[in-house]
Amino acid sequence: MEGVKAQLRRHRIETPSWAYGNSGTRFKVYAQAGVPRTPQEKIADAAKVHELTGVAPSIALHIPWDKVDDYPALARFASDHGIAIGAINPNVFQEDDYRLGSVCNPDPKIRRKATDHLLECIEVGVQTGSTILSLWFADGTNYPGQDSIRARQDRLADALSEVYGQLPDGMRMLVEYKLFEPSFYTMDLPDWGTSFAHCVNLGPKAQVLVDTGHHAPGTNIEFIVALLLRAGKLGGFHFNSRFYADDDLMVGAADPFQLFRIMHEIVAADALAPEADVAFMLDQCHNIEPKVPAMIRSVLNVQEATAKALLVDREALAKAQAEGDVLGANAALMDAYNTDVRPLLAELRAEDGLDPDPIGAYHRSGYQQKIEAERVGGSAMGWGA
Amino acid sequence: MEGVKAQLRRHRIETPSWAYGNSGTRFKVYAQAGVPRTPQEKIADAAKVHELTGVAPSIALHIPWDKVDDYPALARFASDHGIAIGAINPNVFQEDDYRLGSVCNPDPKIRRKATDHLLECIEVGVQTGSTILSLWFADGTNYPGQDSIRARQDRLADALSEVYGQLPDGMRMLVEYKLFEPSFYTMDLPDWGTSFAHCVNLGPKAQVLVDTGHHAPGTNIEFIVALLLRAGKLGGFHFNSRFYADDDLMVGAADPFQLFRIMHEIVAADALAPEADVAFMLDQCHNIEPKVPAMIRSVLNVQEATAKALLVDREALAKAQAEGDVLGANAALMDAYNTDVRPLLAELRAEDGLDPDPIGAYHRSGYQQKIEAERVGGSAMGWGA
Amino acid sequence: MEGVKAQLRRHRIETPSWAYGNSGTRFKVYAQAGVPRTPQEKIADAAKVHELTGVAPSIALHIPWDKVDDYPALARFASDHGIAIGAINPNVFQEDDYRLGSVCNPDPKIRRKATDHLLECIEVGVQTGSTILSLWFADGTNYPGQDSIRARQDRLADALSEVYGQLPDGMRMLVEYKLFEPSFYTMDLPDWGTSFAHCVNLGPKAQVLVDTGHHAPGTNIEFIVALLLRAGKLGGFHFNSRFYADDDLMVGAADPFQLFRIMHEIVAADALAPEADVAFMLDQCHNIEPKVPAMIRSVLNVQEATAKALLVDREALAKAQAEGDVLGANAALMDAYNTDVRPLLAELRAEDGLDPDPIGAYHRSGYQQKIEAERVGGSAMGWGA
Amino acid sequence: MEGVKAQLRRHRIETPSWAYGNSGTRFKVYAQAGVPRTPQEKIADAAKVHELTGVAPSIALHIPWDKVDDYPALARFASDHGIAIGAINPNVFQEDDYRLGSVCNPDPKIRRKATDHLLECIEVGVQTGSTILSLWFADGTNYPGQDSIRARQDRLADALSEVYGQLPDGMRMLVEYKLFEPSFYTMDLPDWGTSFAHCVNLGPKAQVLVDTGHHAPGTNIEFIVALLLRAGKLGGFHFNSRFYADDDLMVGAADPFQLFRIMHEIVAADALAPEADVAFMLDQCHNIEPKVPAMIRSVLNVQEATAKALLVDREALAKAQAEGDVLGANAALMDAYNTDVRPLLAELRAEDGLDPDPIGAYHRSGYQQKIEAERVGGSAMGWGA
Repeated sequence: MEGVKAQLRRHRIETPSWAYGNSGTRFKVYAQAGVPRTPQEKIADAAKVHELTGVAPSIALHIPWDKVDDYPALARFASDHGIAIGAINPNVFQEDDYRLGSVCNPDPKIRRKATDHLLECIEVGVQTGSTILSLWFADGTNYPGQDSIRARQDRLADALSEVYGQLPDGMRMLVEYKLFEPSFYTMDLPDWGTSFAHCVNLGPKAQVLVDTGHHAPGTNIEFIVALLLRAGKLGGFHFNSRFYADDDLMVGAADPFQLFRIMHEIVAADALAPEADVAFMLDQCHNIEPKVPAMIRSVLNVQEATAKALLVDREALAKAQAEGDVLGANAALMDAYNTDVRPLLAELRAEDGLDPDPIGAYHRSGYQQKIEAERVGGSAMGWGA
Repeated sequence: MEGVKAQLRRHRIETPSWAYGNSGTRFKVYAQAGVPRTPQEKIADAAKVHELTGVAPSIALHIPWDKVDDYPALARFASDHGIAIGAINPNVFQEDDYRLGSVCNPDPKIRRKATDHLLECIEVGVQTGSTILSLWFADGTNYPGQDSIRARQDRLADALSEVYGQLPDGMRMLVEYKLFEPSFYTMDLPDWGTSFAHCVNLGPKAQVLVDTGHHAPGTNIEFIVALLLRAGKLGGFHFNSRFYADDDLMVGAADPFQLFRIMHEIVAADALAPEADVAFMLDQCHNIEPKVPAMIRSVLNVQEATAKALLVDREALAKAQAEGDVLGANAALMDAYNTDVRPLLAELRAEDGLDPDPIGAYHRSGYQQKIEAERVGGSAMGWGA
Repeated sequence: MEGVKAQLRRHRIETPSWAYGNSGTRFKVYAQAGVPRTPQEKIADAAKVHELTGVAPSIALHIPWDKVDDYPALARFASDHGIAIGAINPNVFQEDDYRLGSVCNPDPKIRRKATDHLLECIEVGVQTGSTILSLWFADGTNYPGQDSIRARQDRLADALSEVYGQLPDGMRMLVEYKLFEPSFYTMDLPDWGTSFAHCVNLGPKAQVLVDTGHHAPGTNIEFIVALLLRAGKLGGFHFNSRFYADDDLMVGAADPFQLFRIMHEIVAADALAPEADVAFMLDQCHNIEPKVPAMIRSVLNVQEATAKALLVDREALAKAQAEGDVLGANAALMDAYNTDVRPLLAELRAEDGLDPDPIGAYHRSGYQQKIEAERVGGSAMGWGA
Repeated sequence: MEGVKAQLRRHRIETPSWAYGNSGTRFKVYAQAGVPRTPQEKIADAAKVHELTGVAPSIALHIPWDKVDDYPALARFASDHGIAIGAINPNVFQEDDYRLGSVCNPDPKIRRKATDHLLECIEVGVQTGSTILSLWFADGTNYPGQDSIRARQDRLADALSEVYGQLPDGMRMLVEYKLFEPSFYTMDLPDWGTSFAHCVNLGPKAQVLVDTGHHAPGTNIEFIVALLLRAGKLGGFHFNSRFYADDDLMVGAADPFQLFRIMHEIVAADALAPEADVAFMLDQCHNIEPKVPAMIRSVLNVQEATAKALLVDREALAKAQAEGDVLGANAALMDAYNTDVRPLLAELRAEDGLDPDPIGAYHRSGYQQKIEAERVGGSAMGWGA
């Protein structure tokens, strides 16, 4: 058990600034009390999550949603709150110019504008001490014939190549994919294969980002994870849950067994520790539930799945697999999954000076009441705000 | 051919007021020039679509988006423009109160408020001469356990029953369903079976509304249409296209063959004419394309599919079916689908004093330039506006 | 805990005769050693599963796969082995006559033949003491136009009505549905709504059978379960697992959380006990794993999910739901799911004189070696055998 | 039009030997009269299809289903009938040894056996003049944990590499993928990305084979086609139709618009002619319809889609795309799709001395009656026969 605890202590889960603000569906964004009005307030929320869980020591930024005049100051603010700035996420989908795409737009002026924003985000990364540029494009087409699929790939390759060339030492570029939405006929980066093909062409600093909500029904995500790990091309995750589409629910809420299987592949490839350079990031959209406790719950869900994955008896598993013992091998995996790891994690937290029950601790802390009282006036931040 | 033309002349397709305003995805609503600022301007756009196509003589309203002080005056305005008010669509999803549902909300006060709005919409229907109350609920839950599935059904049944009891003579209630979004764990009306079960309990004035974009992957929509027609429970359609989810693209854009198969079931059941009481309504969301010509294109797509369905040699089809001639029966259907009906429809329009090419006529009419010039200032209408 | 144990003791899970024989995919049926050659040998296997688990006291038959000359003798054979005959499953899909369907076939002679077989199965039920006629039809079409969807519904309704009229007192008819396969354009009973509509027309002795593998991607099965329970129309289950289609894997293998959510709806509706008349039946197809231990594993998976469902703190859940506490309500459910119920079930078995570890007990029993040695010669039974 | 006709004359569609024999679903293989009993009779059927359509001059073989003692003689037999031997398809899924996989099996002896069969098929290709080794593997796992995903990839890479090393000059290796079935938890080659990654590693003689029925719901197949063409990695197609899974229906039967969009990408990349080295092969499973006319229908469906794709006004399309004219660009594509190309193709056939109506000509030819009369006795060939 001490080995399991040691590994759990080295695990890091990054929370995203945008999940602390208001978000919703195309039908409605329900406003909530106490949501942040500034990047600093988002950082404070993220710091609270880290304080209570002990495994969430960084926050991802979204530019321009988190735009500030002085990025080094923002990084110091985070550091003063006990966390670091994580991945920098450019936004090239919320201006009218991007109606037909950003780096894949048929208009070269708009492509230029979009690419310049990506380059600007590298600079934000440099100034905030970030090592990851995390790229997602809303680019695609809604109607057959609307644009040339192939020409758009050429434009995408050009932009990625220019940006790749400007990456400083120590910074990686993660290329995310998504099957559908907001483009409906085709996205320009719809699946892991497309991201992978671009990353292979770009070079070692380009890797694939797996968002667990971005796949077609029936896709085996842990298979993709295993493949990318084998190829050295798994850059990291955007964790969330989906029942149908990109539902962006709390990770582990829809299919906790799938989350366990994903973490099992991570552990099997010895890719849990920070030096494996796999970024475990959350990317969620809390539409109806309060943001901070939802984020704590999500961090705990990933941690619980990880603990179960660490409990797999890998020797027994390998033996059964080698012998072609289908039921025995499956049982070896399920034994770990069926274990209740909450006592182990409570013990771990107690040993590390944390409250064994982070959710309860949050409710007892008065933090929610405090932010609801303080964060009045100004405009609550949210998508596009 | 004259019989086909006669049937095409009796076909009616309703356009929705909300598709003339701005709409988008949760990521971005791209503003367009010339979009309406008032219900009257939406009616003017719908009238233009009817003027050019000859088959779109009514407009569906969405309340409160189309709220006015004087509904009879609005109906007269429409009538003066050559069209009628069609279905009334209540909106019980765009207020903060509805975060956990409207008529299924655990809070009885919110259920009361929602039901009152439905009753109010009956009154709007009475005042505008509408015969259809068209109900769609965003209600549902995002997380397992969030609420009792069964209790929510009880509340839904109560609300529907109260509203049903208030329907005046000559007004029908159409109950729409949708698999997912904006609720992700479960919608309270996720499939035709749920709508059907409620409608059977309610009585003859309650019927199912089929939105072509609201099904799980692999669902055979024309099968549902055939079943509902057989049971006398097909109230009408919300036509649109989807590649993946509720994409709300122009009907016929994603799968024109499916649209043809749906219209084939309609024609086979002799349900095309107005007296069959099947409402053919569009429900689309033009995110990136100009609204009015997109609506004309959509109307034409339905009309073309209908013309093809009318061309099916039903005698040959029935004979091949009876003989178990799989390839022959399929060929009888495909012969009609593979026919180019555009010349026939151009001829029909010419005979009726319309421009044979409605899209070309629109571009030549100067209407787009006119509305872009006139509709400046004020706020463009759109979702939630 | 004693209440939970008491409820678990009243739970009954039925295993199917066909899952003990060889089965496979269209690509290959892999033969296994020791599979039964006679209905009696299948009964012996089912009895072994019951002996070890204590909760599987009946076996479903498939006619003609389990055809014998003397059904009362077969029932006595089962009874002598400690189990009863469960549901009778007619087979109207494995003769060349059924190429275009059975009760929906365009040829009335073939419909007659199929209906006669259904009536024959009622008689088998009477002679074996069965109370359930379990109907699944492979009927459907492969190509648009191949046959009239509506005419096939008429034929289906006629056949069901005739069979319903012959049901003796105390026998129910369960109507199963399936989205696709073996018919690809449309099945004639593709979804719960279609089964439900027929059952409502037929009367109280007709109920819907939910096979957990027969839904479109994204379908919320527990929602259907809750709806059917509310309407008094849930006849029972065919349990199995799927990742993509009708994969027929061991129940609980693909999504144990879903199985728990289904059992949660059962417990919430107080429908676990035999007098609720919900039949919990397995329907699986063990392609590559040994049959008997796979069946034991499946029974245990259902039992574990049921135990977790019984552990839900329903008071806390109802309170959180009523208060609109999304996270609290979800947590109440997850607390039970995250509990390791294996110790509780081991204790229950020990108290009842069973081995706490049924899988281990099977391997120690020598049964597998015995059947592999004895069941040599003759032809192994399997699909179509 | 003459340019279009010239391109259509250079198009080649290959039919598969196995589609002339009996096939079915796991539920039932319906026997048909007149199906071939020998590879030679399959070749005769394929020759008939070519004789009537003029565009199907080769037949794919499946080994060992088409195993003969003298392959050069078989090739001469084909040549005497006016066609050539096309792709060689090894079969490593229909022996009991392959229960846990072929080249990915945990047992090295079985991997050796499977790889040896692949090498044997290269030799069959050499002796029959084939230039394509077409690889599909049923390999995968049914249960989480059953085997190591990554270890299986290593084994797959080893086998592919060994086979690649033995490819003679002028022979290509096409690597097919499939999302699911017969393995249900994961296939070892589930998607184009996995095939692509292996092909990139192997070298220029390895290319991806796209089977149109092998994708997850919502996958945009023409996007994959465009990507692979751009990368020089599209080896060819297995054409068929699906409504839900790998339904293997006649190509174009389920979604003729999709087939057109695929051929549009082919034409746009100038990849229609034989020297582009894209193999257009059918892979179907005629369960209920007669084989030879179903194959003729399928060839015609591909030809009609190709003709429509050739009619796209590419200049108008490119102009609208460059201008961001969404509706105009879509209309340019749809204009071609909506054209009835059957008169053009009838004219083409008449000019080339063929009957303008191949289906009618088949029925008038007496061929079906002839094979039904002659092919009596012996065993009809089919899957596994």
